Amino acid sequence: MNRAERAQMAMMLEVCAYPKPGNVDRCHDYPDTRLEHFLASAILAGPVFDAAEKTGGRVGSLIREAVLRTNDHAGGNTHFGAFILLIPLVLGGDIGGARRVVAGTDVEDAIDFYAAFGLTRVRMAESDDLDVNDPASTAAIRERGMTLADIMAYSAPRDMVAREWTNGFALTRRCADLLHSHGSGREAVGASFLDLLASVPDTFIAKKHGEAVAERTMQCAGEVLGGARDLRAFDAECVSAGINPGSIADITIAGIYVALGEGWQWDC
Amino acid sequence: MNRAERAQMAMMLEVCAYPKPGNVDRCHDYPDTRLEHFLASAILAGPVFDAAEKTGGRVGSLIREAVLRTNDHAGGNTHFGAFILLIPLVLGGDIGGARRVVAGTDVEDAIDFYAAFGLTRVRMAESDDLDVNDPASTAAIRERGMTLADIMAYSAPRDMVAREWTNGFALTRRCADLLHSHGSGREAVGASFLDLLASVPDTFIAKKHGEAVAERTMQCAGEVLGGARDLRAFDAECVSAGINPGSIADITIAGIYVALGEGWQWDC
Repeated sequence: MNRAERAQMAMMLEVCAYPKPGNVDRCHDYPDTRLEHFLASAILAGPVFDAAEKTGGRVGSLIREAVLRTNDHAGGNTHFGAFILLIPLVLGGDIGGARRVVAGTDVEDAIDFYAAFGLTRVRMAESDDLDVNDPASTAAIRERGMTLADIMAYSAPRDMVAREWTNGFALTRRCADLLHSHGSGREAVGASFLDLLASVPDTFIAKKHGEAVAERTMQCAGEVLGGARDLRAFDAECVSAGINPGSIADITIAGIYVALGEGWQWDC
Repeated sequence: MNRAERAQMAMMLEVCAYPKPGNVDRCHDYPDTRLEHFLASAILAGPVFDAAEKTGGRVGSLIREAVLRTNDHAGGNTHFGAFILLIPLVLGGDIGGARRVVAGTDVEDAIDFYAAFGLTRVRMAESDDLDVNDPASTAAIRERGMTLADIMAYSAPRDMVAREWTNGFALTRRCADLLHSHGSGREAVGASFLDLLASVPDTFIAKKHGEAVAERTMQCAGEVLGGARDLRAFDAECVSAGINPGSIADITIAGIYVALGEGWQWDC
């Protein structure tokens, strides 16, 4: 399996994993975002990963291209965060390579990234002054000379996907290690997801519902791991409240990509 | 969406459709063949469809290449029948083009196809004298000057996928018409599948369990349509007995491919 295929397989394996509290999985849809939207995104992003692997390219424009190709269905953004992690991983091959890609980004990457952002329905934090719908933001990025790595550093305190760019893909690494420790086979995906959910508050939940809900979700996941709470009941509660740990899902995808490259087997 | 993407999307949409009596779907796996195997096959076949669309190629070698790329997981053959239909459809664009592809096959296509067949676990009917594991079969194909279309005509009485090659993709056309008549959206896939299942005995079931079981399954599907039998209970009965209408699934994939090209929308 080449890098591009590993990226697509990671997207597919993550969304199929079940049970996975709060997120779309093979047994749960949200009304506007369904299993098929995630799988369509995994299929339609293929040529972008393929181009990244075979001919390289710039990380900002590749993220924009991936969003463009996967944004034409009614399910809205499904994988924006995953692309932010997967594109440098596919360009660089592994975490070490992805760090070099991140270190090499420039202002043009930042501009392309903002264009990609503007195509999605992802919300900015209210405190963000670089509004993607504001043409002045592009001018401000140029004026300040911000690279895409700078943009991610700017977002990192409030966004754990952006934080991966600043901390050397630390949670991605942890997720890959969890997959190895749980052993090969698809059950490891859900188990690793739950471990992550119990260890760090999901910033997607925090943006949507506030910090307290993200913290509470993390604690509940820990109770599931400790046996004090039922996994499927917790999943049902999260789904009915719209509490979906979307950023941990993105990091899980990146972790699966890395683990597949290190010999972890999805199919056994 | 280009042809290659339509082919992959058709494979994805078919396997996700639920409820779908007897087959793998988002809610049912078989012990050795699971949802992820089918979705992996849809992802990993992408480059073959892409090559077929962009640079053409020979139908026999493309089918062999698709099987090779998708055969390296433990789920066994998932889409051999689908490739037999999709490769000519992608090469030719639509049913008219696929008919021309079929008419243009030659002995080399037949030899490549037998090589593909030998890679799968698909069973031959006991009456078949062209055993794929017998090197003499290749010699016999050359000696008789059989094209791939001749091979399909030879198998057509016992195999409804092969029969599509001899009847101008009649059931594929019917499935696309059913999708249009059920309207856009994923629910149409399961509904069209059930309509087909109620109208023609599945030859995959017939090879595995005998003609009588295939006939009985068809009758039960009709009872579901007529309201005399519960769909989910019928699904559960089929799954527990291992009665999986795999050939009608293959034809449904081809029908989705055609319908997508004619404006049917999966996402609404």
